[in-house]
Amino acid sequence: MTDYTVDFEPIGRRGTCRDNQSILDCSEQLGIGISSICGGHGTCHSCKIRVLSGTVSKPTTSEREVFTSQELKSGWRLACQTYPGSDCKLNVPPQSMTATQRTQVEGLEIPVQPEPPVWAYRLEIPIPTLSHTQADADRLLELVNRQHRLHCERVDIDVLRKLSSQLRDLNWQCQASVRQNEIVAVGPWPSLQLGLSIDLGTTKIAGYLVDLNNGRTLASKGIMNPQISYGEDIISRITSVLIDSQKGAQLKEVAVEAINQLASALCGEVGANIEQIVETVVVGNTAMHHLLLGLPVRQLALSPYVPAVSMALDLKARDLGLHIAPGAYIHLLPNIAGFVGADHVAVLLATQEKHEKGTVLVIDIGTNTEVSLINKGRITSVSCASGPAFEGFQIKHGMRASSGAIEHIRITGSEIQYQTIDKAPPVGICGSGILDALAQLYLAGILDDSGRFVGSDPHVSTRDGQREFILVKEKTGNGYPDIVITQKDVRALQLAKAAIRSGIQILLEANGCSEADINRIIIAGAFGTYIDVSSAIAIGMLPALPLDRFDQVGNAAGTGARLALISLSKRNQARDMASRVSYIELATASNFRQTFLQAGYLGRYRLKNGKREKDD
Amino acid sequence: MTDYTVDFEPIGRRGTCRDNQSILDCSEQLGIGISSICGGHGTCHSCKIRVLSGTVSKPTTSEREVFTSQELKSGWRLACQTYPGSDCKLNVPPQSMTATQRTQVEGLEIPVQPEPPVWAYRLEIPIPTLSHTQADADRLLELVNRQHRLHCERVDIDVLRKLSSQLRDLNWQCQASVRQNEIVAVGPWPSLQLGLSIDLGTTKIAGYLVDLNNGRTLASKGIMNPQISYGEDIISRITSVLIDSQKGAQLKEVAVEAINQLASALCGEVGANIEQIVETVVVGNTAMHHLLLGLPVRQLALSPYVPAVSMALDLKARDLGLHIAPGAYIHLLPNIAGFVGADHVAVLLATQEKHEKGTVLVIDIGTNTEVSLINKGRITSVSCASGPAFEGFQIKHGMRASSGAIEHIRITGSEIQYQTIDKAPPVGICGSGILDALAQLYLAGILDDSGRFVGSDPHVSTRDGQREFILVKEKTGNGYPDIVITQKDVRALQLAKAAIRSGIQILLEANGCSEADINRIIIAGAFGTYIDVSSAIAIGMLPALPLDRFDQVGNAAGTGARLALISLSKRNQARDMASRVSYIELATASNFRQTFLQAGYLGRYRLKNGKREKDD
Repeated sequence: MTDYTVDFEPIGRRGTCRDNQSILDCSEQLGIGISSICGGHGTCHSCKIRVLSGTVSKPTTSEREVFTSQELKSGWRLACQTYPGSDCKLNVPPQSMTATQRTQVEGLEIPVQPEPPVWAYRLEIPIPTLSHTQADADRLLELVNRQHRLHCERVDIDVLRKLSSQLRDLNWQCQASVRQNEIVAVGPWPSLQLGLSIDLGTTKIAGYLVDLNNGRTLASKGIMNPQISYGEDIISRITSVLIDSQKGAQLKEVAVEAINQLASALCGEVGANIEQIVETVVVGNTAMHHLLLGLPVRQLALSPYVPAVSMALDLKARDLGLHIAPGAYIHLLPNIAGFVGADHVAVLLATQEKHEKGTVLVIDIGTNTEVSLINKGRITSVSCASGPAFEGFQIKHGMRASSGAIEHIRITGSEIQYQTIDKAPPVGICGSGILDALAQLYLAGILDDSGRFVGSDPHVSTRDGQREFILVKEKTGNGYPDIVITQKDVRALQLAKAAIRSGIQILLEANGCSEADINRIIIAGAFGTYIDVSSAIAIGMLPALPLDRFDQVGNAAGTGARLALISLSKRNQARDMASRVSYIELATASNFRQTFLQAGYLGRYRLKNGKREKDD
Repeated sequence: MTDYTVDFEPIGRRGTCRDNQSILDCSEQLGIGISSICGGHGTCHSCKIRVLSGTVSKPTTSEREVFTSQELKSGWRLACQTYPGSDCKLNVPPQSMTATQRTQVEGLEIPVQPEPPVWAYRLEIPIPTLSHTQADADRLLELVNRQHRLHCERVDIDVLRKLSSQLRDLNWQCQASVRQNEIVAVGPWPSLQLGLSIDLGTTKIAGYLVDLNNGRTLASKGIMNPQISYGEDIISRITSVLIDSQKGAQLKEVAVEAINQLASALCGEVGANIEQIVETVVVGNTAMHHLLLGLPVRQLALSPYVPAVSMALDLKARDLGLHIAPGAYIHLLPNIAGFVGADHVAVLLATQEKHEKGTVLVIDIGTNTEVSLINKGRITSVSCASGPAFEGFQIKHGMRASSGAIEHIRITGSEIQYQTIDKAPPVGICGSGILDALAQLYLAGILDDSGRFVGSDPHVSTRDGQREFILVKEKTGNGYPDIVITQKDVRALQLAKAAIRSGIQILLEANGCSEADINRIIIAGAFGTYIDVSSAIAIGMLPALPLDRFDQVGNAAGTGARLALISLSKRNQARDMASRVSYIELATASNFRQTFLQAGYLGRYRLKNGKREKDD
């Protein structure tokens, strides 16, 4: 027996593995939660990993069933079937991790040279006397310009309001935070220069507290978006504003309040004060962006669906009601269109280095799914109204990814295997589970390619005149009723996945490309990160391409927001990218209706000019 | 008999005058209120005018008594003694006008090439369609830049909040108000671009509504400063803030509210909306400036008396609470020192063309009197704590210049002549009357040069152990008690005028000049405008220089504010001037104490090195 050192990335855990121990066993020993439904028998296929370097055992029969030879060549394996043959380095993709582990997977960690919008300068200010009665602010400005060779011209009015007492309290020794030609904060030297980046999602708000001097993330935290009580998706929130214009102000207020609280909580974690945050970047879809800024949304909801503003904005944080440093700004990345917002620009920014070779598709799956095709330096984008089905809404037993949610499902013959979050008794099905369910029902022949329940599977029954598949029987004894997938659920999921697949197809056709031309499909966003790509292919939501062309990058919008927070060059790149995007309104594409109809079918297939061709 | 046309300036009234009619008679016929106490007998000397062009009758004996031959040569005359000999043009200085007329005398009307900070551009915007879904604001910005060759980069957030519905309501035809690189307002085309300039005085707030396109003043109005209820002078207001910091917010609020109301009233006069005001300039002394902006004042009140900020400021009007155009700015001229504020900079700006020749003294008399000496391009300033005596405070029967206030006084032998505002029964004495009283009492030998009541004038009596001069006996029958000037009043006035005279002297000495070197004394401000300069010389408040070296320019602070509103070049000149000023703190001047003591004496004299020399 030999011991090898195994590196698990991107978690950064390293441990010892014996040559007679599978990678799955090793990960369990190290406390790394790799998903496994079948208990290591190679049948559930949920423990996919990728070998980055080192030698491992030869692929088993069950692995040859899951992966193409191309995929095996590029390192894809099942952790339960693989044994180390040397020290090795492995990548555990987010979809292969248990939910508890997933929350730690923030997204891409892209190293970037800090080039922050705000710099702090130390100052020792000569004390005024009767013969040197220069005003406090003028004295400060003159000194910072002279000592640090700057060209500051202004001191923010809220900084001015505190400055005189601050300088005297600090005994004329302080640091000044400078943004372009303006002093936006003054405080004791040395103190942290904090930045806050916010990914303002329809459902969740993610916040990252960053040290602007070195670009390091000091704390991160996600909270629910309290706007949910005004409507679970953006269309219902917009509608509530159109019906009652006061709702607009309320939606703005609750979002701002949530960000203030998130900022306080993040600062609390590192022992900092919220007023040390000297810059904020917020990304969100166009509707979230508009609601946060108190911008009108009526024109977003009505054809031709134009944003009030798309350009990048630099606003005083106080003009929004954020209680960070007195003179601090909030930067908003540009929007692309009414339903392709700054969050998608952030995704493009975060994945920019992956765009360089060939034809690349970037997908951010959500209630609204934004898709961009990068082809020969040209970026084309569409927005697909995929709806909230994949987030568990409109699905009979759908739920969010929390304790007790079924997150992975395998159907083998008459046996149904599933895994729940926290291994708790099952209470419902979350997004990745719903996708798995649809794929497994189709692969098991319980659903035909039109999505109809067929055959006589013992788990299928009829209730209230509707067919349904019983995933969990009530007798499991947790007191909850059966957990089922109904015909109506299947229809909702078909509409959702048809929207995505047809959006991809319209993009390809507008660029004169076919699916096979795609070199890489980058999947961003919480849901997209945790789905089993094989399932997405099996139901025809994504093109049937080799698995190694897929790249699940996690919360890339959050990553993009952090890049824009840390680096002015990144902001410029985002602005540049957004300005180069050609947006296609799906409703205007000639083939759209027919493509959409075909894209509703289940199974692996190719689409071409509104027709479906069987995949070989 | 011949008829001539007579022009009265700066009122701009023109009328016909017969050659046997005095200018005073002619003015009465035209309804121009020229001051006259003696009824046209040449004895009260209050109807001083200046002939600018044309031929008039030869000076009479009484005119030779009032004016030096130099003054007569430069056109000074008494209106009651002068008859036209041709068409002629006359200047009626403010001090020669009755109070009712005075309120119309705004200050210098300086023609200036409009070079406003905000320009309006007409736009016809292409309507968005499904194939052209550019955002509203981006569309607006692109068009204004392309059509008008601008480099706008931003649209104010409050403009953005209204833009989408505005563009649709206006059917995509509008005007955009552009300030530097920012759109600060959008409205229907064509609409007025209004500017508001505010002279924020300790006692009074004067507002001017200006058409920014041509620089014309459309309306003007003065209101009382409601901060008066927190203290009549700035020191008492600052003290109230030091005692109770909440008072600062209240003082800010009442001033802002007053400006909002003034702006509404001015707009009402011209049928405009307050949101059409796209730029505001405010000038005030340093304390008023700080209280308006909510800046701290503690350091103003304590040695070394430094402002929180002196540099010129451009702030969003909303950051102060002004309800003008959504994105409009307020510009504040720079301050010079703790007690030489932006209002004095405005005076320097308004009188700039008068500085060019020789040595010029600019005085703005008020509770605080600012004095600048311009000598060989160098500007030196001091602040004199003259107190509110000349505004009627701390004077037994002092009052503001309103109906029934005695505004001019002459004592001839035992006869006391006076004139009240609106010719109403006398109720008290206003500033110009108080100054006259002191001068007349001294010239009549009732006060000696130390300010003590001497001799046995029948109008002098003793009440409560204090000597007093009875100006009006109770028997005049208006129900009010006697109106008197007490020994205490005289002492208060001596302190006030000593502060001004010694300030002037310290300035001269710091520049190596003597009084005789002064080519021109410019007197600005409400009080300074209406005083009889001869009286000010008689009591030793101003140096005994020939009358034609004095130039009473009215509300020059208001004029300066309007210039800065209309013209960016003027703003730059103001900034430049303020930066060139050397401020002298009087307390640090070596001769100050002794000079101040000597400057308290009444009479015409010269000061030199803290000594008093009789004037020849």
